Amino acid sequence: MTRENKLQIIPLGGLGEVGKNMTVIRYNNQILIVDAGLAFPDEDMLGIDLVIPDLTYLVENQDLVLGILITHGHEDHIGALPYLLKNINAPVYGTRLTLGLIQAKLNEAKLGHVDTHEIKPRDTVRLGTFKVEFINVSHSIPGSVGLAIHTPLGTIIHTGDFKLDHTPASGGILDIHKFSELGDQGVLCLLADSTNVERPGFTQSEKIVGQNIDDTFAEAEGRIIFASFASNVNRLQQAITAAHKHNRKVAVVGRSMVNVVAIASDLGYLDIPEGTLLEVDEIVNQPVNEVCILTTGSQGEPMSALSRMAMHDHRQISISPGDTVIISASPIPGNEKAIARNVDMLFKLGAKVIYESVSGMHVSGHAAQEELKLMLSMVKPQYFIPVHGEYRMLMKHAELAAQMGVHQENTFVIENGSVVEFTRHGARVADKVQAGRVLIDGLGVGDVGNIVLRDRKQLSQDGILIIVLTLNGSDGSILSGPDIVTRGFVYVRESELMLDEVKEITRKTMLRCQQNGIREWASLKNQIRDVVGKNLYDKTKRRPMIIPILQEVKELNTSK
Amino acid sequence: MTRENKLQIIPLGGLGEVGKNMTVIRYNNQILIVDAGLAFPDEDMLGIDLVIPDLTYLVENQDLVLGILITHGHEDHIGALPYLLKNINAPVYGTRLTLGLIQAKLNEAKLGHVDTHEIKPRDTVRLGTFKVEFINVSHSIPGSVGLAIHTPLGTIIHTGDFKLDHTPASGGILDIHKFSELGDQGVLCLLADSTNVERPGFTQSEKIVGQNIDDTFAEAEGRIIFASFASNVNRLQQAITAAHKHNRKVAVVGRSMVNVVAIASDLGYLDIPEGTLLEVDEIVNQPVNEVCILTTGSQGEPMSALSRMAMHDHRQISISPGDTVIISASPIPGNEKAIARNVDMLFKLGAKVIYESVSGMHVSGHAAQEELKLMLSMVKPQYFIPVHGEYRMLMKHAELAAQMGVHQENTFVIENGSVVEFTRHGARVADKVQAGRVLIDGLGVGDVGNIVLRDRKQLSQDGILIIVLTLNGSDGSILSGPDIVTRGFVYVRESELMLDEVKEITRKTMLRCQQNGIREWASLKNQIRDVVGKNLYDKTKRRPMIIPILQEVKELNTSK
Repeated sequence: MTRENKLQIIPLGGLGEVGKNMTVIRYNNQILIVDAGLAFPDEDMLGIDLVIPDLTYLVENQDLVLGILITHGHEDHIGALPYLLKNINAPVYGTRLTLGLIQAKLNEAKLGHVDTHEIKPRDTVRLGTFKVEFINVSHSIPGSVGLAIHTPLGTIIHTGDFKLDHTPASGGILDIHKFSELGDQGVLCLLADSTNVERPGFTQSEKIVGQNIDDTFAEAEGRIIFASFASNVNRLQQAITAAHKHNRKVAVVGRSMVNVVAIASDLGYLDIPEGTLLEVDEIVNQPVNEVCILTTGSQGEPMSALSRMAMHDHRQISISPGDTVIISASPIPGNEKAIARNVDMLFKLGAKVIYESVSGMHVSGHAAQEELKLMLSMVKPQYFIPVHGEYRMLMKHAELAAQMGVHQENTFVIENGSVVEFTRHGARVADKVQAGRVLIDGLGVGDVGNIVLRDRKQLSQDGILIIVLTLNGSDGSILSGPDIVTRGFVYVRESELMLDEVKEITRKTMLRCQQNGIREWASLKNQIRDVVGKNLYDKTKRRPMIIPILQEVKELNTSK
Repeated sequence: MTRENKLQIIPLGGLGEVGKNMTVIRYNNQILIVDAGLAFPDEDMLGIDLVIPDLTYLVENQDLVLGILITHGHEDHIGALPYLLKNINAPVYGTRLTLGLIQAKLNEAKLGHVDTHEIKPRDTVRLGTFKVEFINVSHSIPGSVGLAIHTPLGTIIHTGDFKLDHTPASGGILDIHKFSELGDQGVLCLLADSTNVERPGFTQSEKIVGQNIDDTFAEAEGRIIFASFASNVNRLQQAITAAHKHNRKVAVVGRSMVNVVAIASDLGYLDIPEGTLLEVDEIVNQPVNEVCILTTGSQGEPMSALSRMAMHDHRQISISPGDTVIISASPIPGNEKAIARNVDMLFKLGAKVIYESVSGMHVSGHAAQEELKLMLSMVKPQYFIPVHGEYRMLMKHAELAAQMGVHQENTFVIENGSVVEFTRHGARVADKVQAGRVLIDGLGVGDVGNIVLRDRKQLSQDGILIIVLTLNGSDGSILSGPDIVTRGFVYVRESELMLDEVKEITRKTMLRCQQNGIREWASLKNQIRDVVGKNLYDKTKRRPMIIPILQEVKELNTSK
């Protein structure tokens, strides 16, 4: 008797959230990984630099991994690759630009040789029992593909991130023919991007942005500062084209913008006319109406070039009246206030700032409802798993699928780690594997957990108060201290009386403990913490973290 | 020779920001204060509870203050009153609901008797040389008024917060006749609400929301949970009316919601049919289709009732499939993610959640561009000061005023503390008084400044590492320690080796200092901080706050 063949789809990231996209496709003992993205920390993840998927399941099954398929070069699809490749040795497949961006990332992480394979849309790759087809899609970065993964139990289509753009700034359009052909042949399961499912209608074309950019460049009299996502190569191309047409030189500022422009132009994705590009040091000497600066900072990131310009703190560029600042991006949820702050400061410096969503300086890279319906209607999947979105978006996408004729019991609105299992008898959520988030702060991986975050949270709210005492080892009497050190609690110079009282209370508490025969340090510390904490709360209604530290001296070391 | 008469307008809050609205009107030695609001802290004001205007100017001139005029009962117009009235003794003027909300606030702050005067729209009050007229406006709280302040140098109009609503849920409409009449008589200066100046067109009427609420109540089959701002009394009225019509009992949860419903119904602003209101404990026993719960939490505030329900952590109410949750508010910038998190969790609990801006469950309380133009065209002011808005909004409002015929040099886009001075010769920005923000954390006022905030910020990012040493007073040798305590830096159990190394490094550093004759504690501490800091950064790429603490023992106290 042979075991039944099983096909499993296991999302490890990107469900119930926006970011850190990652999906595992497993057929018996063969695994493909689709994307390996990072997410940016929520505001309550204090001090965290980035978030990656929990990779435990893949590490445990590393010998089964045949390949890593990358749909496009955005951080939320490639950002966890260095962490994945530290643990897993498998070939990576992607288009030229995608691999270029990945290589830069791997170099930075000082990873050794990684086996990469450049693919083009409509290429087919065999990996074990799988046959993988790469399908062109439009998105806000060139070289984006969706995937058709043919398995013995049927075909899985993963859209990656996509939109339908009949007039993209570059690259082919969404490969309607291939998706339709696959749909006609029969698709077992569709995984589709839910990012914009809350938006009715169609997402507008990138070409419209190009026209608006051109109009603005035609009218601007001073310098133009153009802020966008570094990875939005088509957008950069449109700005560069407009600059060239209107006789402006272009300089690039911001580390990621400089990197991407270098990679994209090396690989032929950016067409920069000879003599257009200048160094920043050179461009500051150009007449103002011959200057265009491409910069990072469209999200108000505090250390970005645009934020520095807004703060009047950029080493080379200072904003002057007459400058036009174009923010060619829409706010990622959570960044609204930081962006607004930059806009205000740029206005104050006298710039004309074009930032409103109605300005036509940005279109989304993700499919809205009508495009999502089109995908469902082309692919006609038997089963459907909405991916890339928070829970409410996945629910909404499931509703759309129901409208488009996918049986409700064939749609799986699931969580990261859920295992959707297909056999020849059908499909069901069969299991749950370890999944979740790993918080990365600096070099350390995995060691910023809930305890550390909880402490950071408390420290951030009311600061810390440290009480240090040296005790006589023989009788427990105080030899030195109590000394008080505080940070982030009160302004010490104005609070001397209160802190003196803390010393006094500590002394009394120690004395009382001594009289009651309490000598264990844990008890002494608890007593001090309680009494001092209560005193401070009554006085200030604040609850600083209170850390009593005891030291003991047994005998004076008079040797030297 | 007599001194020239001077009329000054001095905004102390609400300019270049949203919140803590406050304006001073001064004629020679007589002062009126318009509003005394608070602002909620930005996310970088760690641990701060609320923000009020710097009151220094008013405290210094307290003897000149004739009255405090409150336009309406929102926190950003009344929230700083307890702090103001601790310092200044002056009568407070407002409509009945406004005073009711103020009184609750003063009771909570345990302030003694305050002299309050109830006014009605079209009332006129004489205060010194000033004659103040109160003018009805529509806004998202009943009892909202604008002000006409007649002075010997001309009339100042302050709109307060307003919109034009031809079909408000209750109360009169914007008093077009009075504003027009004043405009015909001649207005020296207009101060107008800029909150919604970025929105084209007209703000929709509250009545539309009422119809949508009614439709939703008619269709809902399970319980209805209705989240809104507690102060949006008209909105609550519409929910209560719909509940009564569709045979649902109403319970109120959330501290501020309970307070406002009590005050508003006491004062006749809320019409609650007999028998409609139940206690929460009672309503849980009602059939689900006869239940409506009014709740706080429309902004995703972590401790609010709705957030607790979403977290499945509310003592009395747990969300079940079939429940309809209506979020009848729009996100205040900065709250988007918290709201989305609640929506997701409510969806997961099986509720139908109505939250989208297109759902018609909310309209703004502020005038959009066409209404702002109407105000400018009715009032025809000689001078114009846009208020209540961030800098870009004030600029935009100034543009509108220019379109409406206000001379550009007669519009003042100014900052908090700027003094716009009128004489019979004209107007100019004449001076700058102390203004800014005071951060309030717990009971303390004024003592959370930049140093404390900077420390909290550092603590929140990488935590703290404390190194304690007891030294021999005679030769500087180590008697006890080094001991290490960390919080919010690394997970200690996984980092013992690293922390042991910190001890070792500290010992070596002390020894080196001893050999080099360095005995000053400041130098010793700096050395430790530098060496340990560098070591930890190399290992972790984190920069915890490092606090070396030295204690000294001169002789062992062996008496006892």
